Parts: sequence; C-alpha cells; structure tokens
Amino acid sequence: MEIIKKFRNVFFYILIIGGFSAVIYWIITTGKELEEGRNIIEKTANTSSFQGFLDSFVENLQHPLGILLLQIIIIIIFARLFGWLSNKIGQPSVVGEIIAGIVLGPSLLGLYLPDVSQFLFPVKSLGNLQILSNVGLILFMFIVGLELNIKILKNKAHEAVVISHASIIVPFAAGIALAYFIYSSFAPDDISFMSFSLFLGISMSITAFPVLARIIQERGMQKTKLGAIAITCAAADDITAWCLLAAVIAIVKAGSFVSSIYTIILAAGYVLVMMRFVRPFLKKVAETYKTDTGYKKSAMAIFFLTLLISSFATEVIGIHALFGAFMAGVIMPSNPRFRSMLIDKIDDIALIVLLPLFFVITGLRTEIGLLNDAYLWEVTGIIIAVAVLGKFVGSAVAAKYVGQSWTESLTIGALMNTRGLMELVVLNIGYDLGILNAEIFAMMVIMALVTTFMTGPIINLIERFKSK
Amino acid sequence: MEIIKKFRNVFFYILIIGGFSAVIYWIITTGKELEEGRNIIEKTANTSSFQGFLDSFVENLQHPLGILLLQIIIIIIFARLFGWLSNKIGQPSVVGEIIAGIVLGPSLLGLYLPDVSQFLFPVKSLGNLQILSNVGLILFMFIVGLELNIKILKNKAHEAVVISHASIIVPFAAGIALAYFIYSSFAPDDISFMSFSLFLGISMSITAFPVLARIIQERGMQKTKLGAIAITCAAADDITAWCLLAAVIAIVKAGSFVSSIYTIILAAGYVLVMMRFVRPFLKKVAETYKTDTGYKKSAMAIFFLTLLISSFATEVIGIHALFGAFMAGVIMPSNPRFRSMLIDKIDDIALIVLLPLFFVITGLRTEIGLLNDAYLWEVTGIIIAVAVLGKFVGSAVAAKYVGQSWTESLTIGALMNTRGLMELVVLNIGYDLGILNAEIFAMMVIMALVTTFMTGPIINLIERFKSK
Repeated sequence: MEIIKKFRNVFFYILIIGGFSAVIYWIITTGKELEEGRNIIEKTANTSSFQGFLDSFVENLQHPLGILLLQIIIIIIFARLFGWLSNKIGQPSVVGEIIAGIVLGPSLLGLYLPDVSQFLFPVKSLGNLQILSNVGLILFMFIVGLELNIKILKNKAHEAVVISHASIIVPFAAGIALAYFIYSSFAPDDISFMSFSLFLGISMSITAFPVLARIIQERGMQKTKLGAIAITCAAADDITAWCLLAAVIAIVKAGSFVSSIYTIILAAGYVLVMMRFVRPFLKKVAETYKTDTGYKKSAMAIFFLTLLISSFATEVIGIHALFGAFMAGVIMPSNPRFRSMLIDKIDDIALIVLLPLFFVITGLRTEIGLLNDAYLWEVTGIIIAVAVLGKFVGSAVAAKYVGQSWTESLTIGALMNTRGLMELVVLNIGYDLGILNAEIFAMMVIMALVTTFMTGPIINLIERFKSK
Repeated sequence: MEIIKKFRNVFFYILIIGGFSAVIYWIITTGKELEEGRNIIEKTANTSSFQGFLDSFVENLQHPLGILLLQIIIIIIFARLFGWLSNKIGQPSVVGEIIAGIVLGPSLLGLYLPDVSQFLFPVKSLGNLQILSNVGLILFMFIVGLELNIKILKNKAHEAVVISHASIIVPFAAGIALAYFIYSSFAPDDISFMSFSLFLGISMSITAFPVLARIIQERGMQKTKLGAIAITCAAADDITAWCLLAAVIAIVKAGSFVSSIYTIILAAGYVLVMMRFVRPFLKKVAETYKTDTGYKKSAMAIFFLTLLISSFATEVIGIHALFGAFMAGVIMPSNPRFRSMLIDKIDDIALIVLLPLFFVITGLRTEIGLLNDAYLWEVTGIIIAVAVLGKFVGSAVAAKYVGQSWTESLTIGALMNTRGLMELVVLNIGYDLGILNAEIFAMMVIMALVTTFMTGPIINLIERFKSK
C-alpha cells in the first residue's frame, strides 16, 4: 500500500510539474508574437553572451546597493583586522579602528592606489555611507548614555565633579588660547573667532568615556578606588562636555551668544521634559510591558521611538541629534538588567556593522597629505602638547588638590587624556559646521590618535615608578 | 576636618572655574580684533533674534538627518497604529502595516494633503529612506532564512513537497496565461513578453512564510498535523519560489534564457559553496567562539560578514541581494538556541525600526489613484481571482490527492494563499527592474493585501462548516 501511494504521488508530481511546464513553455513561445511593434532592446544583440554577463556584473557592482555592501564588507574587515592588531600591541582596539579609517582614506589608499580608491568610494556613494554612519553614531551614543550610571554620580563624593570640571575648563581655556594664535592662519574665512575658539576649546576637553571604561576594565582596575573615581570623573566629563558642546553648537549656529538664547532655553526645556516626564513614563512602560523573557514589541517600539524623537528634537532645536541620542540613553529605566538587555539588542549591529563606517567617513576626511611642510607638523605638535598638558595637568592637579596621592593623580590625569572616538565625533560635527578646515581636522585627528595611544604606556610608566 | 576639606574643595572649584572662565571671556573678546579683513556673515544682522531662531529651526528640519529622523518616527507610529488596529479586527498586523504605507503614499496623504506629503517625503530624501529600507529587508530576509528549519523539510514526508510544488506551478502557469491577455495593454514598452510573463507568474506563486507561521501560531495550530504540514509546505514554497525568482531575475536581466546561463551557473556554484564550505565553517566558528553568555564579538562579526558577503555575491551575480540574505540565514548553524539568539540580536531593529520603511517605500509607489476607471478595477479583480484560484485550488487539490481530508486540504489552500510581505518584496524587485509599471504594481499590491486579508475569514468559514 505504502509503495503504491508513493508511486501515485510521484506520478502525480511528474504529471503536474511536467504538464504545467509544457503549458508555460507554450504560452511564452506563443506570446513572443505579442511583442510586435514594441521597442524591446536585445541586450545581447551585439556582444557575445559571456561579454554581456561581464557587463552586467560590473553594472551590478556599481549599483548603489552593490557598492554599499562592498564598502561595508571591506570596512568591517579592515576595522576588525586593525583593531585586532592594536590589541596585539596592548592598545585598545579603537586605535586600530581609527587607523583603519585613515588607511582607507585619501592619506594612504587614495595616495597609492587612486583607482582602487575611486572605484571603492565614488563621491556619489558617500551620501549613503554617511547616513548609515549617522544611524550607527546615534545608536552608539544611545549605548554610551545607557552605560552611564547616573546613580554612581549621585552617590560618589563631590571630589569627582571637582576633578572632572577642572579637567574640562583647563584644556578648554588652553584650547581657546591656542585658537588666538592659529586663528589667522587656519580658520576658514567666514568663521568668527568666537566660533573657532569655542570649538577648539571643546575639542581639547573631550574624554572618551567608552574607551576609558574599557581600559580600566582590561586592566582590572574597575574595583579599585582609583578606577571608580576615574570612571565617575569620565561620566561627569561626558555629561558636562556634551552639554557644553550643545551650547557651543547653539552659539555657533545662531552667530552670537545673545541670538542663541532661544536655542539654549529650548534645550534646557527639552532636558527638563526628558528628566521629569519622559523618564518616569518609560519606567512605567518597562514595568507594564514586561514578559517572562523580555519586553513586548510595543514596549521596544516605545523605547526606540524615544531614542528617535529625542534625537530629532535636539537636531531641530539645533544642538545636534547625537546629544538627543545620548540623553535618551541616560533617561532609560535604570534597572541594570533592563539596560544590558537593551544594549544587547543593538550593540552588535551598532558596534560591529555601523560604527566602523563612521571611522571610514572620518578617515575619508582626514587628508594627512595636506600636512606637507615642517611648519604644519610643528602646529600639530603644539596642538598635541596643548591637549595633553591641558587635560593631563588640569585633572592631575585637581585630583591632587582634593586629596589623591601623586601616583593616583597622575593615573587619573593619564586616563582623562584619552580622547578616542568621542573626539572624532566632535571633530566631525565641527567639520560639518564648516568651523574646522581639512588641515585643522587632520591635525586634530592625529591629536585624538596620539592621546588615545599614549594612555596605556603612560599608565604602565606610572605603575613601574610606583612599584619601585 | 571634613567640613574644612569640603570648604577647601568648594573654594578650589569656584577659583578654578571662575578664574578660567574669566580668561576664556577675555581671550574671546580680545580675539574679535583678529577677524579684521574677513568676510564673516552675521546671521542675525537683519532679522530679530527670534526670527533667526525660527529660520534655523526650519533649516534643521530640512537637513537630511532631520528629515530622515522625522520620517522614521512618523512611519513607525503609523505602522504600529495600523498594525494594532488590524490585530483588533483579527487580522495579522502586516495587513495594517501595508495599509499604513499606502495611507502615507500618494493614494491618500498625497491626494488630500499634498503639501504635507511634499514636506514629509521630498523626492531628494527618498534615496536615504530607500537605502535604510534595503538594509531592513536584508536583515528581514536573513531572519526569514534563520526561522526556516531545514531539518523539518528533511524529516517530513514528500507529501509537503508535492503540495508545495503544485501550489507554485499552478498559479505560475495561471499568471503566465494572464500575462498573455494583459501584456499588450499593461507591459512597459521595452519589456519582452518572456520577462513580463515570468514575473507575473512568480508574483502569483509567492506564499508569505512569516505571515503564515504567525497565523498558525496565533490560532494554536502549530502542534496539529495540519499546522505542521502547512508550515512545511510554506518552507518548501519559500525556498523554491526564491530559487525560481533568482532564475527569473537572471533571465530578465540577461534578456534571454541562453544568455542567462552564466548567471545561473554562477548562482548554482554560489549555492554549492554556501552549503558545502561556508555552512561547516560557520558551525565550527559557533563552536569555537562560544562563551558562557553568548558569542564573542569576533564570531558575531563573522556571522554578519557572511550575511553581507552573501548578499553582495548574489547582487553582483545578478540574482538580487535579498536571495543572498535569505541563503545566509538558511545556512547558519542549525542549533535552535543559536538561531534564536541571533534573531534576538537583530529582530527589534529590523522589524520595528527598518521594516516599516519598506512598507512606506512600497506605499509611495502604489498610486491607487491610477486605477481610475471601471476597466482597470475589472483587471484588478481578474488578477485577484487568478491569484486566489491558482494558489488556493492548486494547493488544495494537491493536498487532497496526497491524502488529506477535504477540510484539511481547503485549510492548506487558504493558508498558502497568504501573500503578505513577501509578495511586496517581489513586486518591488519587479518595479525596480522596470517590468511592472505603476498601474500593474498598484493592482498587484491590492492583490497582496486582499489575499492576506482573506486568509483569516476563510479559515474561520472552513472551521465553522467542519464543526457542523
């Protein structure tokens, strides 16, 4: 019986597939006559079939989606490779990832293999890359906000805030002083001294919370008192620096402090609404829509909408979408399990796939070839010196003053000096606003790279002295 | 002592912040003189400060990032709202989401509020929306592949394959026959009959595996024999239809079957490489990089790279990136916990944030207003009738023949008739290739909507008859 049934099925299968295939073939052949009077292009009329295939191959490669996929693939591979290499030499992977971006940009690939560079990053493809990189940055800043534990800030002594604010205002002032000397030679023609100097100041004051947190973790310092203070300082730095940056962007866009007043009032109102109304609302949502294994899709939709609306609001107010993304992360429900669940949901796509695009966008803008004489490298050296001295000395002296030992103070100074990715974010905003030209941009990227690179070796040095 | 220390700290804080602020203020004021001879635009020269703020507000709103964020926010809200409404009336949420897309397109918003529509979806902003929607579709097809359990297909009887292939070839042939009658009036001028008819055929044969799976789950049918057969059929349908679609795209792009031969050989080679080499490799990666809580970032990078490279390969070969994304999902390690972990990592961003963009891209292309006379609605009716009869009758008869009861056969027929989202994916590919014009596109979208909508009521009807 079973065999008969099987046979019956096979017979039916062959009959139906065979029969209908014949019908299909017949209609398609007959239908050819309907084409009469039409203007159908025979693609393979003049070329051999294989040539036609090759042509379509190249055509597909230059299609927006094709080239975008190729770009992402190559960028991820380079970022992972260079990140891995920089881990091998004891550096945080962000150092390698920044270098990967520079390597793929005009400084190296564009210089030595211009054809490859042109093929891989044609100008008209950069818009798509930029949008995806922006999406990646918004998710990344959201994660930075999520990882920031406001409770730590509340519980810890005021010491951290003193150190943090000193570590911001000193390099800020140093940056503004530096601006006084380089404004005439390097500021774009239509940029006022105030805009230029405020931006140089803020660029000098940035500390990369994520990189610093990773360095502390990799060295097992997160449970020491020193590690805790450094983390808290960096967190306070993050919030302060981003609020300052928001104010600077507002002033720069409005043209003067007075005309930025509406933006600043609105921004303050925005922060208030987020803290007083959105935060409790989200807490309620998280409690209401909890399921055994996680959260309902509707709750997730509300969290994502909060992120998007917050980014949109700050972008429209005029203090940049990234500030809104960061704030959205900060005000999410503080339950650590909730936060790590949310981070889990986005960090792989954000950090593995999208963030490397930002490094390459930065790298494409970084034309190290522009720094082609000794004077420009001198200026770069001065920028690095001012950045390091301002941040390192500012935070170390403050730490010493509020009661840390010298070793601890110096370690805090070294850690706060890490610029990392955050610096690149600020520099790109400055570039987009037209405040930093390509030369200053390249110099500042080198500064970000050097200060991030030096953190590890300096801490090693301090530890070696201490153990003696 | 403690009080003295606190006082000391506050004094130090005020001194350092106050002192440096004064320095900063002084430099910025002094630096004004450096501006001499420059061409600095005073943005607020002629307008009141508040007017200037309003201007920059509107400017920020029209900036690519600002408008993109606004679009995404509105699209998500509409998609969730309409999805929720369609759940309320017992329909799968995809029905509401498709309608949300149409509502935001020229059929409704564009018709009644053209200014709002123009403001919200300016033509130059659509490129960005399209790229993000493509990224969403790639992730979605990856998830569809991940949710497909090949083992089920291997274990189950051949019955499912017979039903599945019958449920493809019958509507395929019906679609081709239909093409014979409407080709002269509706096919774009430069499209051959073969391309047009093959595409109409494949559009008729699609079954939406994800929607079908959700309907079966919502009705608690997944543990019945009937539910298992339907799921298996839909899975077999998915693989077969996507392979057929790949072949159709290859033929259409190359212009004839003969000249598509290289593409088809390469595509076969690609599938072979994925199955024989990439699959075991990924299995090894998953075993090697496993940690207690999940997988290392390097492993995740490899999985994402596989998805991207696979999509890129199929796009360049000429059988569409979405086929590659689907295949990448299919060949991922079959361990169910691994798959659900991977799905967890991407489904919120993909399904909540990015996929609704695709519905709106589809909606923006769907101009129901074009169907402005009775004849066109007649054709739409005929398309729907052919689609339903082909799919419904084809699968029901086959199911009956291989030994199901009449009720079961009809239920399977009703389920397989669900077109859902998958149909929209195919239709958009046809539109992008220039095979479907706006009229046929709108008709086919209505067909997808109607067939998805009717699934629930028909099953209810069958069940009511059965229980009598």
